[in-house]
Amino acid sequence: MPDSVNEAESSEAFKTGPLKLGIAGLGTVGVGVLDMLTKNGDLLTRQAGRAIEVTAVSARSRKSDRGGHDVSVYEWFDDPVEMAKSDNVDTFVELIGGEDGPAKAAVEAALKAGKHVVTANKALLAHHGASLAKLAEENNVCLNFEAAVAGGIPIVKTMRESLAGNGIKKVFGIVNGTCNYILTKMENEGRDFRDVLEEAQELGYAEADPSFDIGGIDAAHKVACLTSLAFGTQTNFDSIFIEGIEHITLDDIKNASTLGYKIKLLGVSVETPDGIEQRVHPTLVPKNSPIASVDGVFNAVGLTGVFVDELLLTGRGAGAHPTASSVVGDIADIARGKHVPVFGIPASHLKEYKRAPMRAHEGGYYVAMDLYDKPGSVAFIAKAFCEAGISIESIEQKAPVNKGVEKPTAPFILTTHDTMENSMRAVLKEIANADYCAGDPRMIRMERY
Amino acid sequence: MPDSVNEAESSEAFKTGPLKLGIAGLGTVGVGVLDMLTKNGDLLTRQAGRAIEVTAVSARSRKSDRGGHDVSVYEWFDDPVEMAKSDNVDTFVELIGGEDGPAKAAVEAALKAGKHVVTANKALLAHHGASLAKLAEENNVCLNFEAAVAGGIPIVKTMRESLAGNGIKKVFGIVNGTCNYILTKMENEGRDFRDVLEEAQELGYAEADPSFDIGGIDAAHKVACLTSLAFGTQTNFDSIFIEGIEHITLDDIKNASTLGYKIKLLGVSVETPDGIEQRVHPTLVPKNSPIASVDGVFNAVGLTGVFVDELLLTGRGAGAHPTASSVVGDIADIARGKHVPVFGIPASHLKEYKRAPMRAHEGGYYVAMDLYDKPGSVAFIAKAFCEAGISIESIEQKAPVNKGVEKPTAPFILTTHDTMENSMRAVLKEIANADYCAGDPRMIRMERY
Repeated sequence: MPDSVNEAESSEAFKTGPLKLGIAGLGTVGVGVLDMLTKNGDLLTRQAGRAIEVTAVSARSRKSDRGGHDVSVYEWFDDPVEMAKSDNVDTFVELIGGEDGPAKAAVEAALKAGKHVVTANKALLAHHGASLAKLAEENNVCLNFEAAVAGGIPIVKTMRESLAGNGIKKVFGIVNGTCNYILTKMENEGRDFRDVLEEAQELGYAEADPSFDIGGIDAAHKVACLTSLAFGTQTNFDSIFIEGIEHITLDDIKNASTLGYKIKLLGVSVETPDGIEQRVHPTLVPKNSPIASVDGVFNAVGLTGVFVDELLLTGRGAGAHPTASSVVGDIADIARGKHVPVFGIPASHLKEYKRAPMRAHEGGYYVAMDLYDKPGSVAFIAKAFCEAGISIESIEQKAPVNKGVEKPTAPFILTTHDTMENSMRAVLKEIANADYCAGDPRMIRMERY
Repeated sequence: MPDSVNEAESSEAFKTGPLKLGIAGLGTVGVGVLDMLTKNGDLLTRQAGRAIEVTAVSARSRKSDRGGHDVSVYEWFDDPVEMAKSDNVDTFVELIGGEDGPAKAAVEAALKAGKHVVTANKALLAHHGASLAKLAEENNVCLNFEAAVAGGIPIVKTMRESLAGNGIKKVFGIVNGTCNYILTKMENEGRDFRDVLEEAQELGYAEADPSFDIGGIDAAHKVACLTSLAFGTQTNFDSIFIEGIEHITLDDIKNASTLGYKIKLLGVSVETPDGIEQRVHPTLVPKNSPIASVDGVFNAVGLTGVFVDELLLTGRGAGAHPTASSVVGDIADIARGKHVPVFGIPASHLKEYKRAPMRAHEGGYYVAMDLYDKPGSVAFIAKAFCEAGISIESIEQKAPVNKGVEKPTAPFILTTHDTMENSMRAVLKEIANADYCAGDPRMIRMERY
């Protein structure tokens, strides 16, 4: 056990016995948590009201390097489920990851054994949030997951504690650092998606298999958690409309910039008269909006509350130490005996999720297409939008870029005023089926905040 | 009592008896709190785990309109001190304001009587934070003050709970909405300080006597609270270096803009090797920094934690409902039985405050002067800075603006690289004493985040 924690334990601030942690998963975040407990043990004891002590650990390999920490001083468990049930553990810290498998088994075992749980596992919460909340409540223990959403940003605590009694109308955010890093690099350095993705992989900002991040799945896991916190509904990952950033081109980014926008991967959850609309997709946001200035690996979560009005929290969405900061904050709450329902209200009160269909989404759209350089093209497009009742906000047609070829095309960009997703899909299908543009027209949604 | 609270009380979420509130002060924020308890009583009961009920109120006049609320249904106290001691009150909500007088007397009486206290009173905390924290601790009750710093922004909870074990290096923010509104209007509309101030007074964004706001006192009250939360020191308002925005000219704002900066009134608290530097002053911040995009009546608080790294929280810093949101969040914590030390650590552990002298402040500076249009002026200025060892970052001299007069002058602007406040003051004094510029040269500090 780290020396500083030993010292802290004997200080006058020590009010009850130490809180005994079992940490499952000793990867980047696990080592970050050990760093924090070691370096700032005294401070943490003063702030948490009692000593916090690691008593047991579990990981895949007993041999790996743990950032210089000697984990042999803790009780070792090959099986995290066994550790979760150990008498030597008050609070089970789950840093394994994954929506099922050992993470789920161990968290369930811990809750059933009456242990508090702290987890950074967004996939687990997104898929099993409602049932885990029920299990935690039946066993009268905490299930804290600040680190699961937006790393070091204290959005979970803000939503489930600070905003009690508010009522939330909308929550949205940049909640995947990998995507934000890639989009920022593309914009700032004028480089292609693939090029930047490869660099991000080399630097460790993107996984070898990046599909979870760039496909929007990771962001959607976080949206599922935010939705339940915002609207008091059961988590429902499967209802989330998801589009990743794989298809965003450098031209899209340049066009957006000319129009006064930046492209961000946003997760949005909003209560509409038809139900809750959960969506993750690339989005044009005005350059002068606060969320547009959130660049690189930074994350941000914004919300509109009935009483607090607008709030925006910005910070590091990943990384060993920022994530550890959230894990340790959750542990400190448990040490103080603070107990808040998992999604802010009793699990039995979580409403059934009612999905607002994405085709009913209302908003502005950016559309890009390669229009054949022939008479009638623009008239056809204009007429199609007009007949669909969609009001065009701006149009830009550039000079043809491929004059030598048989059927030269000109880049044609337009943005619309707010309209229905349904109407947009119909008009783009009509355009795709006619012979006025090469390939299919592409659309990106816009948000004006 | 509002109907919705009555209904909530009988719901299954009702676990213990209702929390009984006595509200002292029924101005804007007091009415905002009544609005929230009335409109969202059911939701609040679910989130707070028990019913929350107003049992008593106290205000200066029994007759005033209270935003349509019939306060005659609550027990009335002419004297808030008597209400604070009433058996009919569990939690005393202090919305009177002022660093001494009835607010202080009533808060002290409440704490001594073993009542929890929720307050929005920054002046009270800034001046008496350490002794009130001690009193709360001796009586084993909560003293919650989220609404005292930056209105609806949950910075107090973030610092004293979420960031447990982090260690804070610096905290800073735009914490006075009146000043930010005035500076934003000056910049966006090219209008003079006095002109915008008068409009702000008409709109109710500035008080009839605006000196507390524009002189930086209100911001300094909030800085004093943030300092104790960040560094675990006793509150020390008297050590804060304070400069208001009264002397900021439209020219300063235009010059700053040309150089790529905006001018904001920042409160800053930072731990230095010499002690803690607390300061409030107009500041040039780079236009592309996140804090620069915080405009109008919005506030923002940023910090650097050892583990979490950078966090920035943005939201409404004032107004009935955003402030009520923070008051009600604090009340919900008390209803749940959550008890956190006032400044995050036991009052007995709060360190004595050690002041870092402002003359030891290190940073960049913007300097504006009206240089006489005669040979040797620029050379004199350049030599003075050179001999003081201050490195100049940029210089801009404009054409003389008053050619007809006896001694025409030319606006002369420069910015420096980081240097010591001491050196800057000396060189500006030297320039003021020589006969090269009309009036005294003026400086504004710069921050590069």
